[in-house]
Amino acid sequence: MTEDAAGDGSGDGDELLFHVDGELVPASEATVNVRDRGFAYGDALFETLRAYGGEVFRWEAHADRLAEGADILELDHGLSDAELKRCVDETLAANDLSDAYVKLSVTRGVQPGKLTPGPEVDPTVVVQVKPLPRGGRGGDPVWDGPATLQTVKTRRVPDGAIPARAKTHNYLNGILARLELRVTGADEAVMLDDDGNLAEGATSNLFFVRDDALCTPSLDGPVLPGVTRAAVLDVAREEGIPVREGAFVPDDLRNATEAFVTNTTWELRPVERVDGIELGGVSEPSGSETGGTSSLGGPVTTLLSRLFDARVERRHYAGE
Amino acid sequence: MTEDAAGDGSGDGDELLFHVDGELVPASEATVNVRDRGFAYGDALFETLRAYGGEVFRWEAHADRLAEGADILELDHGLSDAELKRCVDETLAANDLSDAYVKLSVTRGVQPGKLTPGPEVDPTVVVQVKPLPRGGRGGDPVWDGPATLQTVKTRRVPDGAIPARAKTHNYLNGILARLELRVTGADEAVMLDDDGNLAEGATSNLFFVRDDALCTPSLDGPVLPGVTRAAVLDVAREEGIPVREGAFVPDDLRNATEAFVTNTTWELRPVERVDGIELGGVSEPSGSETGGTSSLGGPVTTLLSRLFDARVERRHYAGE
Repeated sequence: MTEDAAGDGSGDGDELLFHVDGELVPASEATVNVRDRGFAYGDALFETLRAYGGEVFRWEAHADRLAEGADILELDHGLSDAELKRCVDETLAANDLSDAYVKLSVTRGVQPGKLTPGPEVDPTVVVQVKPLPRGGRGGDPVWDGPATLQTVKTRRVPDGAIPARAKTHNYLNGILARLELRVTGADEAVMLDDDGNLAEGATSNLFFVRDDALCTPSLDGPVLPGVTRAAVLDVAREEGIPVREGAFVPDDLRNATEAFVTNTTWELRPVERVDGIELGGVSEPSGSETGGTSSLGGPVTTLLSRLFDARVERRHYAGE
Repeated sequence: MTEDAAGDGSGDGDELLFHVDGELVPASEATVNVRDRGFAYGDALFETLRAYGGEVFRWEAHADRLAEGADILELDHGLSDAELKRCVDETLAANDLSDAYVKLSVTRGVQPGKLTPGPEVDPTVVVQVKPLPRGGRGGDPVWDGPATLQTVKTRRVPDGAIPARAKTHNYLNGILARLELRVTGADEAVMLDDDGNLAEGATSNLFFVRDDALCTPSLDGPVLPGVTRAAVLDVAREEGIPVREGAFVPDDLRNATEAFVTNTTWELRPVERVDGIELGGVSEPSGSETGGTSSLGGPVTTLLSRLFDARVERRHYAGE
């Protein structure tokens, strides 16, 4: 579940052009028919992408996940990865955006009024964009400050009901989790699985540090295989940081020395509090000389953020 | 989960007028913005209604359920039941329909790009209609024949993740259940809860007869409080038929002497087979002299169908 917080201050969204069913249209005129199954049932897949310097970060990973979701939903949209990428690229170009939030949706399209999907799919492809700050080294984070997490009562939908690895427009589970935060002041909900183990945030994957190991709930639970999650694990392993993917309980997170949450838009966002408990790493910043994002987290968070930023810098901005 | 099968043979749907955000528009132009939360997240409620002789059946029960769903989603749409009813009535009138399928949706509307809903809601109200045959005594069923049920692997979303009594546009759980039927030839999926107890059909409530009692999964499980379900229970109790609402396993249904499924559009639809097993009631029709719908089910199904039809007749067509 990786989607949020992108540039709400971007001004009049109506000036942006969105891609809908093959056409570029002003956002205010970007619509789908009410009989589209994406509207009727949330029968649609999406990816939240981030473009750095004009290029989508880890497009192949997003395209693979979308394809896996299409397999799960038996949504045979018939579009190649390249065709989907072209929709994204055209939308970025039409808005003259190189650093941007992108939301790509593929619905099962309009079909007669039966719940059972027909085999013939005329998909609706929608691309929405918003400007974001530059990423990479020295880039500004899109979030205002460290995250405060709150464990909520709403449990993550089990894989036996809807597999978490399908990223779909059925997002009420996360919305119900976020609604619980209204009385707490926290800004991300920690969702547990049916067994009471940590699953994920409403729109983020969870990471924390215990005994010098980087810990994160494994994909055996109802956890979205986040693209940023995978990138962080790559970076950590390359750096020789011990990684533990497994089953964890809320106390593991509460007692962590540091923690952060990830999604495509946030990248790595340090965590300040969990269930009202202040984590060690945030209150005692590591005294980084560079300031900015990284100094808000503990040492492992800071290191991983810098390594992540360096990758983005090298891949997306090196030619500047 | 009560929604399906309404008049797919109704011809060119584009000639119908739908109600969208206060306006009556041709179905082909009935759209919502892609930033509407109903599209983005399925953050919307709906009711499937049936109009008989120009009046919606049990409107108050539908309005109450919609209101409960709005409470659960904290979707403060600010519309009175009467205002919603007016949208429905205007749509029926504009299409000159008195016997019709009606789908009423209320979304949380367009909001900035955060998953967490803002408190200020400008809802989108959508009413879709399709002609249906006359109901009541002598009315034709909307289904082609008795239902064949198949227990599926997809489990019903637990109430702890999304409460089943909120009827929302997050309908992928039922779609995944129906997709499993592609290889079986069955036409309704029987979904179990996490404990392996019967929950409901993908778009219907389950009823069966054992030891002369009418049995149905209780609302303690993840079961939609169907309006037709409640009407059938009313009628059964009035008739002095023993009713058992409780927790049941698939074998209880497989070994039933007769069974039927209910939703607003189907009313009572007899069940012929469950998991390939033919039920007694359907293969030996009760020899009804009137023929039609009722003779397809066993004696209890037949009786309840007639009593249901009689109620509809009395309330909706008595003045003809």
